[in-house]
Amino acid sequence: MSEAEEVYGYGLYLEQAKPHLSAGAKIHQSGMTQEMRRAEEAISTAAAGRRTVIVSGGDAGVYAMAGAVFEVAANKGAALGEGEGQLDIRVIAGVPALVAAAALLGAPLTHDFCAISLSDRLTPWELIEKRLRLAVEADFVICLYNPKSRGRDWQLGRAAELLLAQHRSPQLPVGVVSRAGREGQSVHITTLSELASAPVDMQTIIVIGNQSTFVYQGFMITPRGYVNKYGI
Amino acid sequence: MSEAEEVYGYGLYLEQAKPHLSAGAKIHQSGMTQEMRRAEEAISTAAAGRRTVIVSGGDAGVYAMAGAVFEVAANKGAALGEGEGQLDIRVIAGVPALVAAAALLGAPLTHDFCAISLSDRLTPWELIEKRLRLAVEADFVICLYNPKSRGRDWQLGRAAELLLAQHRSPQLPVGVVSRAGREGQSVHITTLSELASAPVDMQTIIVIGNQSTFVYQGFMITPRGYVNKYGI
Repeated sequence: MSEAEEVYGYGLYLEQAKPHLSAGAKIHQSGMTQEMRRAEEAISTAAAGRRTVIVSGGDAGVYAMAGAVFEVAANKGAALGEGEGQLDIRVIAGVPALVAAAALLGAPLTHDFCAISLSDRLTPWELIEKRLRLAVEADFVICLYNPKSRGRDWQLGRAAELLLAQHRSPQLPVGVVSRAGREGQSVHITTLSELASAPVDMQTIIVIGNQSTFVYQGFMITPRGYVNKYGI
Repeated sequence: MSEAEEVYGYGLYLEQAKPHLSAGAKIHQSGMTQEMRRAEEAISTAAAGRRTVIVSGGDAGVYAMAGAVFEVAANKGAALGEGEGQLDIRVIAGVPALVAAAALLGAPLTHDFCAISLSDRLTPWELIEKRLRLAVEADFVICLYNPKSRGRDWQLGRAAELLLAQHRSPQLPVGVVSRAGREGQSVHITTLSELASAPVDMQTIIVIGNQSTFVYQGFMITPRGYVNKYGI
């Protein structure tokens, strides 16, 4: 980042990046739903020979900008690589939100888990519901991304209903973490029956335990194995 | 880590941690399957008033030591918290292996995904198979942990068979990453039909695409949405 000449991103993440940028870096701010346009502009800039960075929240590869960048590059038929005239795209791994949230909750991700976004902006709601049902059947720990946003307020309640109807216990532990590691961080442990009324927004990650997950003195813990449970 | 008085861990991870430790830190090395004993010893040491660190590979919360530590603390009935005589356990979030692998492959985790460990040491194989089948039905991108180890050599082949039998295409892109970001790093993109013969070991993460995942110029890309695919 300290060598970037052009920096693209959503406002909140650019603010966090600023201390790491050089004084001469040109900053391009764009809105929450402008991912494809942001990726297109950044790729054009990079193709013109400028050292370009796109800042992403959490990890750039998890529901984030890395995908948009490669999609745009593929649509354009861009030549990728480190050679002359090629576009050299590198993804820098980071701490994804689900892991930052898990660390604050205790150890909920010690066994198999899945991540499901509740945003039906680019995915049909029927597919989201199908994934929730199958994730319960598989007894995955379930991390929910994008539980709510302006104009999208019923999805979390519907998801909670569906999980309860699938015979997950109303007392199942659920972790609700907002702004992990950032200003305004909040960490709550609640239960599945209370999930629909939990205080959530676009920056909240929800971690729903598997059938073995328990709460001990304010920490949410998923045992490492099914061995003790089944007496194997 | 620089303030740790006692440091526990598996040999490989302790080696990586050494440059960050103070000269006076006491190092306790233990083997690959000694997680519970390591957690017990570290908790006893911490309870005796020593500043204690357990080093973990990748992120400590994803199939790793955070779970063992909280399990042991709960079994002992330890009092957790920051007060006098309490055990103050903190999990420091890191870059999990699946995210480090994904960054090297391109952008395979741009849509819903799951992580499944193929180790049947603590989990019945029937449950692992059930999760694989349901993950395919849900069209998750699937990250496989622990594909192989000494004495555990048939699980990956069986998993590949099962995915093919579930009508995943033989041409489905599969990423195989070993030792991401470490000495001996290797990154391959192959197909589901070739997976069983991919060179893997305990330090390999396998990323199996969803039905929309494609390969473009050596990068594995999962589109952000299902909108274009279904023409919505």
